[in-house]
Amino acid sequence: MTDVLARIEATIAARREATADKSYVASLFAKGRPVIARKLGEEAIELIVASLAQDHDAMTGEAADLVFHLMVLLADAGIAWDEVLARLQAREGTSGHAEKAARPQD
Amino acid sequence: MTDVLARIEATIAARREATADKSYVASLFAKGRPVIARKLGEEAIELIVASLAQDHDAMTGEAADLVFHLMVLLADAGIAWDEVLARLQAREGTSGHAEKAARPQD
Amino acid sequence: MTDVLARIEATIAARREATADKSYVASLFAKGRPVIARKLGEEAIELIVASLAQDHDAMTGEAADLVFHLMVLLADAGIAWDEVLARLQAREGTSGHAEKAARPQD
Amino acid sequence: MTDVLARIEATIAARREATADKSYVASLFAKGRPVIARKLGEEAIELIVASLAQDHDAMTGEAADLVFHLMVLLADAGIAWDEVLARLQAREGTSGHAEKAARPQD
Repeated sequence: MTDVLARIEATIAARREATADKSYVASLFAKGRPVIARKLGEEAIELIVASLAQDHDAMTGEAADLVFHLMVLLADAGIAWDEVLARLQAREGTSGHAEKAARPQD
Repeated sequence: MTDVLARIEATIAARREATADKSYVASLFAKGRPVIARKLGEEAIELIVASLAQDHDAMTGEAADLVFHLMVLLADAGIAWDEVLARLQAREGTSGHAEKAARPQD
Repeated sequence: MTDVLARIEATIAARREATADKSYVASLFAKGRPVIARKLGEEAIELIVASLAQDHDAMTGEAADLVFHLMVLLADAGIAWDEVLARLQAREGTSGHAEKAARPQD
Repeated sequence: MTDVLARIEATIAARREATADKSYVASLFAKGRPVIARKLGEEAIELIVASLAQDHDAMTGEAADLVFHLMVLLADAGIAWDEVLARLQAREGTSGHAEKAARPQD
């Protein structure tokens, strides 16, 4: 199951070359960063709404949508999924409260 | 690297039992679903902002934050990460435009 | 110009009675709170994206969309626009930092 | 009551000149557009969460927060509240479904 994300990342990369009318991903790349970022935000909100409605099936679907659009956004910025995993790994072992205190504040 | 998410999922599950003053994750579970959902939304917005500022390092960090809080939200709902991967896998092979057309509309 | 919001509030209230296929507002009320809340979130994200693109014309339009959907959400909850204004008024004179410090934290 | 927004707009404009350690609004202006945009997004999410929890008092407060930060964001971009009202006014009389159909799609 852990290969799913690697396969999706490869598929997203491959679709950069496709024509926008054939592929949803290609059409997102063609529209550009602001539209991709907006889609990510919309999926996050759909997940929030599903999670507050206690709708587990919808939550699972919206979480999948969010992860998918996150991977498109990362691909658009040339960031590999492994870089995100490496960042998460680097934090392992840091207690959450310590980690949070170490973050830049605003 | 692919084991990172599995380890984080296990850590999050283990921290449900911790006391809230010791663990950031335990404090999120103690605050409940609305606060966890809100945190997810805030991380999504921070990622959007970083992505529009073309700040790749910040994007990587915010993506990691988003994935982490997504896993906390899923854990709070009793949804395994594998269920989300299974949903993504089920969609593989579906062309994106077809997939999008098949989604329920509002 | 200040009467615009009062007129819009009255229009939104009137459209509660309309049939959903004739009125966008009536269709939102028919879909219910989660869909209205999601629309508000989408408009907020569109405004964020426009504001970071420094697109003032789009910002004005998205701000109008956000205010409009805010008024629909409030109407759906039976909250009058004047109640929101009263809350803002009550805070006038409080210095922002003091006000923020007084808010419940999580 | 309708003068509240005009007074707040004037107060926000006046605080641009204040020092950041004395005024919450001045500190937001000092942090810049991305932080202000993020705050607006956070307030929208807090409103969504309150609205789905059916918490009317919290909704009123979060709606006030959202309007306040919207006015800060507009001020940061040099957009007057009246411009937003004018945009809303221009749409009055347009049926919602017609208006929505006329918007640019993505």
